[in-house]
Amino acid sequence: MKFLKTILCGLFVAALVPRVNAQSANPVEVTMNKVKLSFTLDAAGTPQYNVQYDQRTVVAPSRLGFALADDSTFYKDFEVLKTSSRSVNDSWQPVWGEVKSIRDQFEELTVSLRQRKAPGRLLNIVFRVFEEGVGFRYEFPLQPNLKYFVVTDELTQFRLTGDHKTFWIPGDYDTNEYLYTTSKLSEIDNTDMVKTSTDIAVRTAPDPYAVQTPLMMKSTEGLYINIHEAALSNYPAMQLHVDRAGYTLTSSLVPDAFGNKAYLHAPAQTPWRTVIVSNKAADLLASKMILNLNEPTSLTNTSWIKPMKFVGVWWEMQTGKATWNYSNFPDSMDARGNLIPNGTHGANTANVKRYIDFAAQHGIGGVLVEGWNKGWEDWFGNWKENVFSFTTPYPDFDVREITRYAASKGVTMIMHNETSGSATDYERQLDTAYRFMNQFGYPSVKTGYVGKIIPRGEHHDGQWMVNHYERVARKAAGHQVTIDVHEPMRPTGQHRTWPNWMASEAGRGNEYNAFSVGSPPEHETILPFTRLMGGPMDYTPGIFKMKGYASYAPDRQMHTTLAKQLALYVTIYSPLQMAADLPENYSAKPDAFQFIKDVAVDWDDTRIIEAEPGDYVTIARKEKGKANWFIGAITDENSRTATVPLSFLEKGQVYVAVIYGDGPGADWKTNPESYKIETFLVDGNSNLKLKLAPGGGAAVHVRPAAAQELKQLKKYNLK
Amino acid sequence: MKFLKTILCGLFVAALVPRVNAQSANPVEVTMNKVKLSFTLDAAGTPQYNVQYDQRTVVAPSRLGFALADDSTFYKDFEVLKTSSRSVNDSWQPVWGEVKSIRDQFEELTVSLRQRKAPGRLLNIVFRVFEEGVGFRYEFPLQPNLKYFVVTDELTQFRLTGDHKTFWIPGDYDTNEYLYTTSKLSEIDNTDMVKTSTDIAVRTAPDPYAVQTPLMMKSTEGLYINIHEAALSNYPAMQLHVDRAGYTLTSSLVPDAFGNKAYLHAPAQTPWRTVIVSNKAADLLASKMILNLNEPTSLTNTSWIKPMKFVGVWWEMQTGKATWNYSNFPDSMDARGNLIPNGTHGANTANVKRYIDFAAQHGIGGVLVEGWNKGWEDWFGNWKENVFSFTTPYPDFDVREITRYAASKGVTMIMHNETSGSATDYERQLDTAYRFMNQFGYPSVKTGYVGKIIPRGEHHDGQWMVNHYERVARKAAGHQVTIDVHEPMRPTGQHRTWPNWMASEAGRGNEYNAFSVGSPPEHETILPFTRLMGGPMDYTPGIFKMKGYASYAPDRQMHTTLAKQLALYVTIYSPLQMAADLPENYSAKPDAFQFIKDVAVDWDDTRIIEAEPGDYVTIARKEKGKANWFIGAITDENSRTATVPLSFLEKGQVYVAVIYGDGPGADWKTNPESYKIETFLVDGNSNLKLKLAPGGGAAVHVRPAAAQELKQLKKYNLK
Repeated sequence: MKFLKTILCGLFVAALVPRVNAQSANPVEVTMNKVKLSFTLDAAGTPQYNVQYDQRTVVAPSRLGFALADDSTFYKDFEVLKTSSRSVNDSWQPVWGEVKSIRDQFEELTVSLRQRKAPGRLLNIVFRVFEEGVGFRYEFPLQPNLKYFVVTDELTQFRLTGDHKTFWIPGDYDTNEYLYTTSKLSEIDNTDMVKTSTDIAVRTAPDPYAVQTPLMMKSTEGLYINIHEAALSNYPAMQLHVDRAGYTLTSSLVPDAFGNKAYLHAPAQTPWRTVIVSNKAADLLASKMILNLNEPTSLTNTSWIKPMKFVGVWWEMQTGKATWNYSNFPDSMDARGNLIPNGTHGANTANVKRYIDFAAQHGIGGVLVEGWNKGWEDWFGNWKENVFSFTTPYPDFDVREITRYAASKGVTMIMHNETSGSATDYERQLDTAYRFMNQFGYPSVKTGYVGKIIPRGEHHDGQWMVNHYERVARKAAGHQVTIDVHEPMRPTGQHRTWPNWMASEAGRGNEYNAFSVGSPPEHETILPFTRLMGGPMDYTPGIFKMKGYASYAPDRQMHTTLAKQLALYVTIYSPLQMAADLPENYSAKPDAFQFIKDVAVDWDDTRIIEAEPGDYVTIARKEKGKANWFIGAITDENSRTATVPLSFLEKGQVYVAVIYGDGPGADWKTNPESYKIETFLVDGNSNLKLKLAPGGGAAVHVRPAAAQELKQLKKYNLK
Repeated sequence: MKFLKTILCGLFVAALVPRVNAQSANPVEVTMNKVKLSFTLDAAGTPQYNVQYDQRTVVAPSRLGFALADDSTFYKDFEVLKTSSRSVNDSWQPVWGEVKSIRDQFEELTVSLRQRKAPGRLLNIVFRVFEEGVGFRYEFPLQPNLKYFVVTDELTQFRLTGDHKTFWIPGDYDTNEYLYTTSKLSEIDNTDMVKTSTDIAVRTAPDPYAVQTPLMMKSTEGLYINIHEAALSNYPAMQLHVDRAGYTLTSSLVPDAFGNKAYLHAPAQTPWRTVIVSNKAADLLASKMILNLNEPTSLTNTSWIKPMKFVGVWWEMQTGKATWNYSNFPDSMDARGNLIPNGTHGANTANVKRYIDFAAQHGIGGVLVEGWNKGWEDWFGNWKENVFSFTTPYPDFDVREITRYAASKGVTMIMHNETSGSATDYERQLDTAYRFMNQFGYPSVKTGYVGKIIPRGEHHDGQWMVNHYERVARKAAGHQVTIDVHEPMRPTGQHRTWPNWMASEAGRGNEYNAFSVGSPPEHETILPFTRLMGGPMDYTPGIFKMKGYASYAPDRQMHTTLAKQLALYVTIYSPLQMAADLPENYSAKPDAFQFIKDVAVDWDDTRIIEAEPGDYVTIARKEKGKANWFIGAITDENSRTATVPLSFLEKGQVYVAVIYGDGPGADWKTNPESYKIETFLVDGNSNLKLKLAPGGGAAVHVRPAAAQELKQLKKYNLK
C-alpha cells in the first residue's frame, strides 16, 4: 500500500456564467422542417422535452435526468444557466457505405443547467433537430464538484401518445438474437419469449416489460417512429422499460455486477438518444441521422479497409456435416498427450484449400475458417476463463501452407477469434493474436462472444463490454485489421468512427434456420427497421439448398425462397457479405450464383423504393464507382408485386436488367427452390413489376447494355 | 451465435475400482515422529480427520468436504473406494532461500472416496504427514459426472481443543495490512479493527468472526499451532471463520461477485491446508513444510534470477517530501495540452541519477523509481479502468538516459507498475509493459494493486486475482523479469514454483510508520509467525531518521530503535531487501549503514536461535557461498537480553563479530537513534549476549578474522 495524499481542490473558482431565469427560458423551441423540439423545466426544476412531427405530438413532455450514486435526485431542482444554439449544414464521405456522400444538417440547442441545491452541479443537454428526427445527449462538463461518478440510473423518458403497433425483442442484457414480436405497446411482455428461446445460449432479461432498441413503432395515424441511440461508447446499452398503461418508455441501462450502470469521469457525455419519425416508412430506412451523430473517424489512412464478399468453412458446421472441434473430448488424448482426431474436423488444410479454390474461381474475395484453433472441444457453456489459443492451430490446419496457397490464388483469409464470452482472456491475447494475423496476412477477423461474459458479473451489453468491443476495434485498427463482431451490443453507428468495424451480428441471423426452428418470412422485413438502424449486419445470406441441409434435423428448411436469399444481399446492408452456403450447393445452381458473384458490397447511392415493417422492403443501390444498380425486393409470408420505377437510372442510357425472381409455383414452405432468371433491356422510364411468392423475393442486376445486347435482348414490357 | 452441439458423454465407462467397506477402512492412521494423522468416515459418510502431536490432540475430528453449485451435500454420504500410501524422503535445492538444501520427508495417505448416491462422484483427499505437521488437499479426479463445476463453499474444519492465544488479523477479502490483535480464540471479533483501520485503502470484511491465515496460536499447554495453506493456485485464498464457543475454525473462501468461490475443471485440486505444530516456537519458523508442498519450478534456466538489495525514489513520497504525480490535477493542462508540472515530482532524471550514484557508491544493486509513468494525478480511489500507461514516462523522466547512466554505473533499474487495482488494464498492457522492460534493461518490477479491483466484483484474494498474479509471474518469467508484488494475496510458498516471484508485500509494512500511526514494537515479532510463514516480505526496513521525517505529521516516529531496523534485514527474510531511507539519512550515519551494505540477501543456512510470537525473534543466517554469518535479534516493547550461542560457527575458526546494538539510553519511543557498534573476536564457543532496548534490536556481522585482526581485536567476553 502507499500513502494516499488528499489533494484539496480549493483552487477551483466557480465558473462565471450568466444566470438565466428558468421561467423566462421556458420553453425553448427548435424546428427543422416538420420536426419541432421543445425544452422546458417543470415546476420541480426537472428538464422536460417534447417532439412534434408535422404538428402532431410524437413524444409528449418527458423527463430528462439521472440518479447518481451520490445524488439520487440528479433530475430535479435545476435552473437554466444558459442556452445556446447553432445551425449546421455539412456533408461528409464515408469510407464505405450505402451512399457516397452524407448530408449532416441540423439545428442544435445546448441547455446548460445547474442544480440549485449545493454543490450546484452542472449538466448540459444537447439537442440536435434533423429533418427526420431528434437526437439528444447529456454532457457532464468539467466542474469542481463532479469528477469521478457512478450513474445508477438514467431516467430519460419517452412519453408516447398512443398504443402504437410495436416491433420488439426483449430487453436482454446479453443477447439481441430473439425473434421479433409485433404487438401493441400495451401488450408488451417478454416473459414467454425469454423463457422459450432456448436456442439462445445466454439470456438475462429480468424485466418482463423491457425491450431492446432500435424500437420500431407505428401509430394509428400512420406515423413511423424509431427510438434508438447513437455513438454508444464508454456507457451501457440503453434498453427501454415500457409502462404499458401510460405508453411511457424509460431508459433502462444494462448494469454491472453491482447494479451500477456507468462509471464516468467528467468531462463526459452519454450516447445520443434518437427519435426518428416520418409518415413514410421508407424515410426511416434512408435516414443517416444515427451515423451523423457519431464522431468522424480519427484514422488518417483507411485505404486498407475494403468491403468484401466471402465464403467460409462454417455452414457445414452449422448443419452438422463437420465439427469445429478436432477431437470429441478435451481429455481424449493419445499416449503422447496429443488430441485424438475425430475425423469430422472442418478446418483441415485440404478442405480449406477447396474453399480457396472456389473463391478464386468465382471472384469471391475472402475465405473465413472457423474451428482452426485449439480449444473447441469444451469451449461452450462452462464460464471458462481460458478457452482458446488465438495463435495455435489444430494439427491438421497448416497455417503457413494455407497462407501461401491463398496468396497464390489472390484470396484473402479471414481470421476467426471466438472468445466464448471470456473477454478478459481475449484482451490478454490481443497483442499476440493481432501480431499473428499480421504475420500470416489475415487482414480481417470475425470475433465471437457466445457464452456468459467474463469478467463474471458483466454483460454483453454493459459498459465494460461496450468498452471492450471498442478496445478491440482500436487494437485491430492499429494492426490494419478489419473486424466483424458477433454477439456484441447492437450497433449505434460507431462504424463512422471505427470504419474498420465493418459489421456486427448482434441480431438473429440466417444461421437460426440451421440450428433452430428458424425465423419466419417476415423476419427480414423487420430487421431493416430495427437491428439495421444502427449499422451493418453480418446476416450470412445466400443459402441455396433450402431443405434437408441439417443432418441432425431432416425436416428443417429455410423460411424464404431462393430468390429472396439473393435479394437479401441488397435489402440487408453490409460491406461484408457472406455467401454462406456450401460450394457444392452453389456449383449446382451456377445461374443463380451469378447474382452473388456480381452483387456489389459498396455503394454510391441507395434508394428505398418501398417499405413497410413486417411486410415488405424494396431497395435499389448503385455500385460504388460503377454504373450498375442492384435491386432487392422481399416480402413476408404474403405474395405481392413490388413496383420499382427505374427513374434513378441515367437518362438516355439503356441498361440490361437481369431479374432473379421466384419461379413457377414458388413458395417458401412448399417450393422454395423454384426460381427463374430473365434478362431485359430497361431504361429510366421502365417500371419493374416484380412478383414475389409467399416468403419470396427478387434480385435484379441492372448494368449498361453493350452494343450487341441492344439487338439481342428484348425490352422490358414498359408499363 | 452458433450452433451448440450437445455431445453426449455416453462413452464413459465406470471406473473399475475395488470398493472398500467404509467401516473396515476406519480409522486410517499415519505417523511421522510426534505427529499423527487419523482419517475416518463418520456414520453419515462425512470425511473426518484429526491431528495429534506428541499424543496431544491438536485438531479434534473435523469435517472435510464441499458445497458445490449443483450439490450442496458434497461432504457426506461417501464411501471409501481405496486408500494408498507412500513414503518420501527427498531433498531439493531452491534457486534462492534461507537454506541451501531442503529436506522433503513425509508419509502420504491418499483416500479415494465415492458418493454412494447417484451419480457416484469421486473425491480424493491426500494427506502428507511431516515431522512438523500435516498438509492435506482435495483432488477432484477425472470422472464422467464431474467436469466443470463451481465450488460454492469449502467446508473444511479445524476443531481446536482449547481457547488458544491467537495472533490474528481480520479475514478481509482485499487486504492483509491490518495490525495484529492478540486475543483468545473466544474473543475474536474484527468489527472495530476493520472499522477503525482507515489507513487501509480498501477493506471488505463482512464476517466479524473471520480471520486471515497464517493463523498463529499457542495453547495453554505450550503448543504452538499455525494454520495456513500451501500452493494456492486457481482457487481463492482461504480465510477462517471462528466459532468462538466451540473453538472450531471453518474454511471461508474469498468469493466473487456472485458469492461463488471457485470455478474448477476436473481433474483439479485445491491448495494444501496446513497445520504446523511444535512445542518450540522456533521450530515453526524453521519449517519448510509449506515450501515442500509447492510444486517444483518448471523454469529450466533460473540464472537470471538474482537476490538483491535496492534503494528507491519512494520514501521521499511516503514522507511527503516529493510526489508521485507530476502535476497536481489531471486537468491541469497548458495551452498545448501538456500537464503543468507541480515542481515536486520525485521521479525526475536528476533525482534518479542521485540515487544511482548512491547505489553505485555503496554497492547496492538496484534502484526502484516510483511515479515515473503517466497517470498519478488521479490514480487512486476512482475505481477507474484506465489509469496508468506502463510505457509512457513523465516528461521529466528520461528513460533512455537513465538506462544508459545506470548501466554505466553497474546499477540495476527496478521497474514500477502500480495498477491501482485495475488488473484488467494491467493484463491488457502486459505484453507491451514487459517488452518495454526488456527494451530498457529493467530485469525486475515492483507491482501494486492499491484500490478496488477491476474486474468489478472481484477481490484481491479471490480466485480471479490469484490467477492474475500467477499470470503476471508467468509473463514476467517469459521476459526474464523478477517480480515483487504489493497488495497480492498473502504468499503460500509459490516462490518454489515461481522463483522469479521473489517477494510480496501482502502485509503491514514499514511504510505504515510513515503514512499512518504505525505499528507497535511487537509487530515485527509477530510477522515471522504469520505473514512470513508463506514467503518473503518486502517490508522495506532500514529507516535511520527515526522521528520528524514526515513533513505532514511532525510528531510521527518509528516504533523501533535504529539497531532494530538493522536487525530486520535478518529476521524478516526476503531475497529482495530495500534500504528504504533517503540517501542523505544514510550518509549521515555511515557506520550504521555499513551493516546494510554488508548484509547478505541469499543464504546457505538459517538457525532460529530463539523466538516467541509477540515477544522476540533471534535468527542467524549464513551468507550464500561465503563463511559469513549475520544475526538479527529483535524484541517487542520490553527490553531483553538475547542469548546467541555461536556453536554453528566452524570449529577452529576465529571470526570477527561486528555488533550493531542499541546504544546508551536507547528506547524506541524516547531515544530511538542511540546505537553503538562494537567489534570482537568470536568462535564457536562464544555465547553472545545482546542487550535489546525497549523496541530494540541488534544486528551482528560475523566473518572470518584476518590474520592481523587476531592481534588488533579483543575477544568477546565468553560466558
